[in-house]
Amino acid sequence: MRVILVGFGVVGQSFAKLLLSRSADLYSQHGIKPRIVACVDNRGSAVSPAGLDLERLLAAKKAKGTVGAYEKKSAKFDPLQVIENVEAEVVIECTPTDLSTGEPGTSHIISAMRTGKNVISINKGPLALAFPSLIELANYNGVMFRFSGTVGGGTPILEFAKRCLKGDRIISFQGILNGTTNYILSKMEEGLTYQSALLDAKEKGYAEAKPELDTDGYDAAAKLVIMANWIMGMKVTMKDVARTGISEVSVADVEKAQSRGNAIKLIAACDSRRLEVKPTPVSKKDPICVNGTLNAVTFSSEHSGSQTIIGRGAGGMETASAVLRDLIEIRDTIFER
Amino acid sequence: MRVILVGFGVVGQSFAKLLLSRSADLYSQHGIKPRIVACVDNRGSAVSPAGLDLERLLAAKKAKGTVGAYEKKSAKFDPLQVIENVEAEVVIECTPTDLSTGEPGTSHIISAMRTGKNVISINKGPLALAFPSLIELANYNGVMFRFSGTVGGGTPILEFAKRCLKGDRIISFQGILNGTTNYILSKMEEGLTYQSALLDAKEKGYAEAKPELDTDGYDAAAKLVIMANWIMGMKVTMKDVARTGISEVSVADVEKAQSRGNAIKLIAACDSRRLEVKPTPVSKKDPICVNGTLNAVTFSSEHSGSQTIIGRGAGGMETASAVLRDLIEIRDTIFER
Repeated sequence: MRVILVGFGVVGQSFAKLLLSRSADLYSQHGIKPRIVACVDNRGSAVSPAGLDLERLLAAKKAKGTVGAYEKKSAKFDPLQVIENVEAEVVIECTPTDLSTGEPGTSHIISAMRTGKNVISINKGPLALAFPSLIELANYNGVMFRFSGTVGGGTPILEFAKRCLKGDRIISFQGILNGTTNYILSKMEEGLTYQSALLDAKEKGYAEAKPELDTDGYDAAAKLVIMANWIMGMKVTMKDVARTGISEVSVADVEKAQSRGNAIKLIAACDSRRLEVKPTPVSKKDPICVNGTLNAVTFSSEHSGSQTIIGRGAGGMETASAVLRDLIEIRDTIFER
Repeated sequence: MRVILVGFGVVGQSFAKLLLSRSADLYSQHGIKPRIVACVDNRGSAVSPAGLDLERLLAAKKAKGTVGAYEKKSAKFDPLQVIENVEAEVVIECTPTDLSTGEPGTSHIISAMRTGKNVISINKGPLALAFPSLIELANYNGVMFRFSGTVGGGTPILEFAKRCLKGDRIISFQGILNGTTNYILSKMEEGLTYQSALLDAKEKGYAEAKPELDTDGYDAAAKLVIMANWIMGMKVTMKDVARTGISEVSVADVEKAQSRGNAIKLIAACDSRRLEVKPTPVSKKDPICVNGTLNAVTFSSEHSGSQTIIGRGAGGMETASAVLRDLIEIRDTIFER
């Protein structure tokens, strides 16, 4: 199975390491032998139809900061040209998420689908801004489109809803979809102000220098959009989400909630009437009320009741494991055809 | 799809009601049209190759206490003869669990498999006592054997582990697998003694008159055996579980745990070294530390980290929804062949 890896940051590199450590086992247990035939990052590319040497690829990235250093003489840098012209069954899109433009991910995905390649995306941007049309494009071109790693990191939230609750009807779901804001709110529970909790999150590496993507609820909203489309069959994008971030949550709000046995959480909720991200008091006895950087989602179904799934919502190796699950699923489906 | 329903208690009746309410939708969404061609309870049976009228079946059970009252003139009562001789694709075994003998469930399942019928069991007895040999028998006869409802009621714990974590390796799991004992321990947290908490559980209908199946940890051990076989590929039965119940848990134990930020939970744990059910202090911050009748299981995988799944572990309609999931899976697999 030939794979083009677009983007070689934390998740891309973790995926390469995962393949290195699991190759024998993947073949014996799943009959899958992935070959990375091309890898593109923001400065260069490496191409080898026989499969790149992953240890050399990781070493090149580490030494020179780009996979362009894989060969002594690097080719002209043109990601779309690589995606379109290199023969492969699957393109893995893991460039950084941009929730304003969706680029460069959206162009990469469109190029891949147009040239008949299945796509795995861990980039939330294209999905948050154009989910319905990307699904249509995939169907039109007869390719598969998977994105398990966009929600919950390694925690299989999307698969749980789609596969484990087959035969039942999910009526609504709600959850904590962003670890950074949950960490900040957990610290506020312990007595910190919003500003000092944010600073602590930055020091620990949980929050970015510009933390608005998390704190204003954009990241949670993007994940909510992906879930609403994929699980509930809605056709929605970012603009359909009523979004409130956590920057206005005060120590007084937290204390008031505490006095009632609650904690304030940034809850993303979806049912037939609403699509919403906002700080909400949640009972501490509710399984969804998790602390630190954990994510949690509760699904309510017509017959099988309510179920909650909890796990870390991020992490390079965890997210890489979600990419591998998608790859196995694509391989199994191609094989069945 | 022709189904023989063996056992017509709470879950069996809920399943009949579920089929009644969902028939149109099951056909349009899953292409499945289940026909109950025979139903057996502990006193009689009803058979109709064209499919029993489920409303009439439920009414007969309600009025006379047995499905034998479905026809004016009931046939001679012989469950094994019905299972073997009535033509059907699937036998659903939902007679009561007996963890000493496994009967009558085990005989029913063996008869069904021998005559080439796929089997869905919600009866834990046969699985807890003879999992490895039942799986062998199913393979030998080329039939499918599913039992989603035996663990977690409607909460898809088995499916989660088998399907959502594909491509990864589950290293260990631990969980609260019995709602009754969790209810009792939760009440002891609130200050009740073991005896008064047990009495309260009986009054609420959570504990049986003879509660030892739950309180001595047999029910949790049975579920642990099913999970160890199915998820971890072990070949174990009840006798391989080191089992301690909750009847020796004292108010002092609970208070000591509380003073350290813990709660005592009846934890069923499985890794490469142990298969164990015993009261264990768990941090209240651990997602597994749920209260009331909830069940919770944490799976630890090699790459995707730890994930916890939480839900009600019982309930007639919830468990019936698990049977329906199994039925859809069997149908999809037969169809693919």
